[in-house]
Amino acid sequence: MTTRITTIYRVKAEAATIEARAQGIAVEQSVEMPVAPIDDPFVLENVLGRVEEIKDLGAGEYEVRIGLASITTGYDAAQFINMILGNTSLQDGITLEDAIFPEDIVKAFGGPNHGLEGFRARVGAKGALSATALKPQGTPPATLARLAYDIALGGIDYIKDDHGLADQYYAPFAARVPVIAEAVHKARAKSGVATRYLPSLNGNLDKMRAQMQICRDNGVDGVLIAPMLCGFAQFQTIKAENPDFLFMTHPSMAGGPMAPAFFFGKLMRLMGSDASVFANYGGRFGYPPQLCKKIAGWCLEESKGQKPCVPVPAGGMELKRVPELLSFFGTGVILLIGGSLLSAKENITAETAKFCDAVRNFS
Amino acid sequence: MTTRITTIYRVKAEAATIEARAQGIAVEQSVEMPVAPIDDPFVLENVLGRVEEIKDLGAGEYEVRIGLASITTGYDAAQFINMILGNTSLQDGITLEDAIFPEDIVKAFGGPNHGLEGFRARVGAKGALSATALKPQGTPPATLARLAYDIALGGIDYIKDDHGLADQYYAPFAARVPVIAEAVHKARAKSGVATRYLPSLNGNLDKMRAQMQICRDNGVDGVLIAPMLCGFAQFQTIKAENPDFLFMTHPSMAGGPMAPAFFFGKLMRLMGSDASVFANYGGRFGYPPQLCKKIAGWCLEESKGQKPCVPVPAGGMELKRVPELLSFFGTGVILLIGGSLLSAKENITAETAKFCDAVRNFS
Repeated sequence: MTTRITTIYRVKAEAATIEARAQGIAVEQSVEMPVAPIDDPFVLENVLGRVEEIKDLGAGEYEVRIGLASITTGYDAAQFINMILGNTSLQDGITLEDAIFPEDIVKAFGGPNHGLEGFRARVGAKGALSATALKPQGTPPATLARLAYDIALGGIDYIKDDHGLADQYYAPFAARVPVIAEAVHKARAKSGVATRYLPSLNGNLDKMRAQMQICRDNGVDGVLIAPMLCGFAQFQTIKAENPDFLFMTHPSMAGGPMAPAFFFGKLMRLMGSDASVFANYGGRFGYPPQLCKKIAGWCLEESKGQKPCVPVPAGGMELKRVPELLSFFGTGVILLIGGSLLSAKENITAETAKFCDAVRNFS
Repeated sequence: MTTRITTIYRVKAEAATIEARAQGIAVEQSVEMPVAPIDDPFVLENVLGRVEEIKDLGAGEYEVRIGLASITTGYDAAQFINMILGNTSLQDGITLEDAIFPEDIVKAFGGPNHGLEGFRARVGAKGALSATALKPQGTPPATLARLAYDIALGGIDYIKDDHGLADQYYAPFAARVPVIAEAVHKARAKSGVATRYLPSLNGNLDKMRAQMQICRDNGVDGVLIAPMLCGFAQFQTIKAENPDFLFMTHPSMAGGPMAPAFFFGKLMRLMGSDASVFANYGGRFGYPPQLCKKIAGWCLEESKGQKPCVPVPAGGMELKRVPELLSFFGTGVILLIGGSLLSAKENITAETAKFCDAVRNFS
C-alpha cells in the first residue's frame, strides 16, 4: 500500500493524443517501461503512476493529474524531484504546475523549521520585515564588514550575503563570516534592532557543514541556501542537522519546467525553506503580479504539518515601492532591497533607516 | 588577474533593447548590482562580467557572448553553475547555448576520469558498446538479480540500474547491489563478456559515499549518477574520491534554460561524465537528429585536458534501429536499450544477444 502524490502538469497536446501523453507521463515518472510486460501485481498496484484526470484548458492545453506512488520517492528529497518531474523535464510543452502532497510526504520532508514566526521572533517584529544583501562580490571581508555595519546601524532586520559570495579567494567564507558577524553584532547595540546576518552556504555537503560550524562559532543563527545548486537532499540534511537555524532559500537555477508558483510557494516550503526568495514583479524579472501573489499565498497558506514560509519578493526593489508592495503582499513578507540601497554609498545608513521605517511603519 | 569563461546565450529581444539586455546579463551573472556605485578597481576589472559580442540571428533573436571572470566561480562546481546561468535561468527568452572554458576551469573540474577509452577497455571492446537498464522499480532484489543474469548471459556490455531505482524499501541499494553484482559476475564466465553493472547513486553525499563503498565491496567499478538531482558539487566530490570508477551521467531534471547540446555535450563532460545519457531522436523525447549529432560531437571532440566522453543516446531504442543509429552516430557510442528488451520476457537472453551482435558486428 502507498499513498499517492497528485502531480498536476500543464501539457500542450492535441485532443487526439492527450490521453496517450498523459499515460506516457504516468509511465515515465514511475516504471519507465512498457506496462504490458509487467506482471508483478505489487508494481502494477503500488508503483505504476495513474492518470487521475485530464482537463481541457482550451487553446491546445490540458491539465493532467497523475497519482504517483509516494513509496517510489523512498522519502528522499533528490529522488522526490526525480519522481515528480525528472525525465519529463526533458519533454517539450510540459510544466509541473502544482502537486498535492499526502501526509506521509509532508511528514518526511517536514517543511520549515521556524517559518514566518521564527523570522519575526529573531528580530522582535510583528509585521513586515526588511532585508538586504552584501554586494558586490570581489569586495574584501573588511569592506563587506564595514558595509554590513553601516547597514545594520540603519536598523535593518536581515542582511544576507549576495548569492554570488561563495568561497572565492577574495573573500573566503571562513574569513568573511566572522568579521561580518562581529560588525553586525556591534551595530545591534547602537541601533536597538537585533539585526541578523545570513551567510550564503556553498560547495558540497562537507563544506556546507563546515560553514554551518563557522556560523555557530560566530553567533550566526540563519543562512542563505540555493537548493537547485546544492541539491535538495543536501538542503534537507543541513536543515535536519540544524533545527535551530533559519533557512532563507535562493532561486538560482530555478528556471525550467517547474512552474514558479509551485517551486517557490510549495516545493521550497515542503523542503524546509523558512523564507523563499523569488523574482518580484516590476523589477528586472518578468514575473507578473498575479504570479507573485500566488507564490506568496502558497508560501503562507494553512497547511497541516508545515509552518508558513515567508515570501521574499526581490529584484528591482526601491524605497518608494514599499507602500505599494506591502499593500499588495500584506505584512507576512520580507522586502529584500539590494542594489538601490548600495547606490546610496556614504548615505547608506540613513537610506537603510528610511527603508526600514517605511517597512515597519506601514499600516 | 583572471581568465574568463565566454558564455554564449541566445536572447529574444528587440534591436532597441538588446544592448541593455546583454549588459544586464553581464551584471546579473557577476556583481548583481548597479555598476555606477562600484568604485573598487579590482571588482571592475576582475569580477564584473563583460559583453564581448552581440550577433543578430534574425527573427528577434540574438547571440550574446559574455566574458565571466573565472575567479568568481571559486572553482567550485555549484558556484560555477550559479555564475554561468544562476539567476538568468529565471529570465524568459534566454538560454545558455554554449560556453568556452579557459584552461584553469578545465583543470579545476578535470573532465572524465576515463571516458570512451575506459568504457571500452573495461569490456575489451573497440567499437560501439551496448547497454540496458534494470526495470521496473518495485521489483525485489532477487528478481532484479535474475533479470540482470539473464541479460548478462546475452553478452551485453553494461547493465545500469534504472534511474528510478533509488533506496526504496522494496529494493534498497545495500540489498540489491550485492546480489545483482554477483549475478552479473556469474554470467560473465558463461558469456565471455566482461559485463559491468552500474548501480544508480542516490540521496545526499553521505549516502552516495556509503553506496560507493558498497560498490567497491562487491567488485563494481562504475556507477550511474544524476548531477541535476545530487548537485554538481557532489558529483565532482564523488568523482575525485573515486578516480578508478566510471561515471555514467543521467539526464533527469536537465530540462530548462540550458541548451541540451551544451548541457549533455560540454557541461556533463567538464564535470566528469565518462558517458553522458541523453534523449535520442525518434524515441519518446522530442530532440531532433541534428541536435543529437551535435551532442555526440561535443562529447567526443578533441579538447585539451578533457578525455572524450561517450555519448549515450537513449529512449525508445529498438533492435531494428541499431544499424541506423550506428551509421548516424558512428561507433564512439553506447546504445542504451530499455523497455523494448524487457518486453522479450523469457526470451530476454536471446534478444539481448541479438542486440549485442548487431552493435558489435556493425561495420
